[in-house]
Amino acid sequence: MTMPMPDDTICAISTPPGTGGIAVARISGSKALETAQRIWKGKRPITEAAANTCLVGSVTDTCGEELDQAVATVFRAPRSFTGEDVVELSVHGSKWVQQELIMALIGAGARIAEPGEFSRRAFASGRMDLAQTEAVADIIASGSRAAQRVALRQMRGDFSKRIEDMRGQLLELAALLELELDFSEEDVEFASRKKLIELAVAVRTATARLAAGFSAGTAIRDGVPVAIVGATNAGKSSLLNALSHDDRAIVSDVHGTTRDVVEDVISIGDYTFRLKDTAGFRHTSDVVESLGIERSLRELREAAIVLLVTDSADMERTPWDDVKRAMEENPEATLIIAANKCDIATVPAFGDTLASAVIATSARTGEGIDELRNAICDAAARLFANGACGDTLVTNARHYKALKDASEAAGRTIDALELNLPGDLVAQDLRECISHLGTITGAISTPDILQTIFSRFCIGK
Amino acid sequence: MTMPMPDDTICAISTPPGTGGIAVARISGSKALETAQRIWKGKRPITEAAANTCLVGSVTDTCGEELDQAVATVFRAPRSFTGEDVVELSVHGSKWVQQELIMALIGAGARIAEPGEFSRRAFASGRMDLAQTEAVADIIASGSRAAQRVALRQMRGDFSKRIEDMRGQLLELAALLELELDFSEEDVEFASRKKLIELAVAVRTATARLAAGFSAGTAIRDGVPVAIVGATNAGKSSLLNALSHDDRAIVSDVHGTTRDVVEDVISIGDYTFRLKDTAGFRHTSDVVESLGIERSLRELREAAIVLLVTDSADMERTPWDDVKRAMEENPEATLIIAANKCDIATVPAFGDTLASAVIATSARTGEGIDELRNAICDAAARLFANGACGDTLVTNARHYKALKDASEAAGRTIDALELNLPGDLVAQDLRECISHLGTITGAISTPDILQTIFSRFCIGK
Repeated sequence: MTMPMPDDTICAISTPPGTGGIAVARISGSKALETAQRIWKGKRPITEAAANTCLVGSVTDTCGEELDQAVATVFRAPRSFTGEDVVELSVHGSKWVQQELIMALIGAGARIAEPGEFSRRAFASGRMDLAQTEAVADIIASGSRAAQRVALRQMRGDFSKRIEDMRGQLLELAALLELELDFSEEDVEFASRKKLIELAVAVRTATARLAAGFSAGTAIRDGVPVAIVGATNAGKSSLLNALSHDDRAIVSDVHGTTRDVVEDVISIGDYTFRLKDTAGFRHTSDVVESLGIERSLRELREAAIVLLVTDSADMERTPWDDVKRAMEENPEATLIIAANKCDIATVPAFGDTLASAVIATSARTGEGIDELRNAICDAAARLFANGACGDTLVTNARHYKALKDASEAAGRTIDALELNLPGDLVAQDLRECISHLGTITGAISTPDILQTIFSRFCIGK
Repeated sequence: MTMPMPDDTICAISTPPGTGGIAVARISGSKALETAQRIWKGKRPITEAAANTCLVGSVTDTCGEELDQAVATVFRAPRSFTGEDVVELSVHGSKWVQQELIMALIGAGARIAEPGEFSRRAFASGRMDLAQTEAVADIIASGSRAAQRVALRQMRGDFSKRIEDMRGQLLELAALLELELDFSEEDVEFASRKKLIELAVAVRTATARLAAGFSAGTAIRDGVPVAIVGATNAGKSSLLNALSHDDRAIVSDVHGTTRDVVEDVISIGDYTFRLKDTAGFRHTSDVVESLGIERSLRELREAAIVLLVTDSADMERTPWDDVKRAMEENPEATLIIAANKCDIATVPAFGDTLASAVIATSARTGEGIDELRNAICDAAARLFANGACGDTLVTNARHYKALKDASEAAGRTIDALELNLPGDLVAQDLRECISHLGTITGAISTPDILQTIFSRFCIGK
């Protein structure tokens, strides 16, 4: 389904807000070229420019006076980002010029684009499906190589293609099934029940796998949650500082300094991590500190990576029981042990632990810090590999919901087929499954859904 | 004089820093196209693109993997901003993509441009003279229509042309004068003394006039200084708030609240103003407050506009004597009187004052605030008109210094000619005058001067 094409002309500054060498205003719509021409002075008019060429000239302000020198790049429908005629005006990046340029364009008949409206038009014109346009916003927000790769694949349409393939096959069988219903008196079977069950099982499995990767996907997109735990004074805060090259957490020699969960976002290799330094585990009567410990336990359960810091000089206070219990509650998490203070004490032998790696570290001398960073990075790579389904990793809550719903509807379809229920009941479940898949790519969409999706975009995209 | 052309390739993000819909990386140098091509994947290679056309494709990261979809716009020497081959790569505006793109370009053989290096190359290739490239930085920094216009005219070369015209005429006469020196034995006169005096007088007048506009120029560029003065409790702070629609200054009913000079930058019409709320005038033994009053007097002397706020309910405390003295010391300033609290008291008749306007105002009801804004704006327009020499207003301290020096050298030339001093002494003063003019456009420049000028540019310009 495509939406009706709007016929008004929209404009916005597409470059980041602020002052810089250049800024770019984007104008899109069936009258984009005429609109831009109204504020253009140059040897050649914008309206006569060939597609994918640029002109050098100047733009005028609302009073018709020269505002700035400019380069106009012309894209013609349908070969543009929005699928409409598009002009990009590149001017000097002063805030004042940018503001006046938009005022001039409004004077020339354009209106300011809503957030995401350029992408919405790209969707409306069929240049991109919904999952692809959503990936544009993810690319802009991406903060690591891994997040960027996931978003780029989605923008290129790899994910959409998988979904549309499934949906196409289901649609075909659904059509045959509904044809049967038209001939219900005659007891014919156009749609092979065997093929239908096979396909529904395949769809259920694929959608469930994709949905299962969602927590890994959000971790990749927003940062992999790492909980740093250990006895008070084991050196957690210093280790966090060593990892992040920053003095964000409070470090002191008094036990129980870190009461709040301190969060630090750092990049290691291709990944972003959210390091959470939790309050130390210590039996205490201090209410505030107790609350801190409660929060630490929650962080532990939500972490993808648990980094246990032990104090080589004082191993007895290591909260083994707490960590063990938390790992049982969160079996997906990777446990890494940093045997800290290796500069002042002998690192003890670690017996059989749940840990994927035990690394002797010294926050003070920096020993083992690089190995620790590598171990954390490896854990993220495994998370990515386990979560990704082929090359695809679901990072979008809307897609996750649709996949879960599609998987459940596929399950109900299988049940109905196995129970040999009437064709119309099977068809209903099948339709639901198809519909949920369709919402992902926007093959099925409502204005409300579109509004929600595009409003989280930035203006100018 | 042009500088030798560098043969390395430079790159930088030219759009404002941060996240946005799109970001643009600019690459310049004789190998710009080959460099960009190394990270380009597309149907058509960048190296074969015609001038002023753009290609759609994607860019790769340092590992050769696809980084993002991109549009490459190709400009070919000498028709580009820098006069060299230039490629502009437009990508999605995530911070991560921008950073990786620069890394990839460095991997492909470019280096990160220094601040202003693109403009410096535009100067080196003769695309712009020095005054024009300096105007580029002013345009980017401009915060008002008036500042933008001044900078735009300078960028278009109006100012440079005036300077070069003068310099050209002086050079011609200087050449004749020096020719005479070669024939000094023969007592010939190639250079008409009458013409020389006429020209030197014209140059002295023109350069002095241009230099005289400098204080108006800086006021237009950085904001016109407005000092708000009046007795304590006359309502200065409230009036400043009303003018700026902001609660920046402290307002209370206690006399002498505003001890420090509070500065607020606001735009009215085409101009930017720096409103300075000064401490009230009151005879006091409080040392801190005395210092505040001292500072108020200084602000008064430096202001282009003095806004005297009188208290219609308590006219006796109006510091007439102080304002009068300050206006005598600063006769260029425009005095505007706001007869405040017109909502609670009858505005008295103002006799013969130095004021260009007397406006009944009420900060509380908003009465007269628009009239006051208009009066302030009119004063700025007069400042602009008085300071501007033709269409040119000098806003640059370097130009101001060079103009003053040129004017003085022209004066010495006149003196030498009138005293009928020997030709070689006249020639020396003439040369100095020519040299000072030459530094403005960069016809005469040293690497040190250039370094100083371009280092204040932003990166990517």
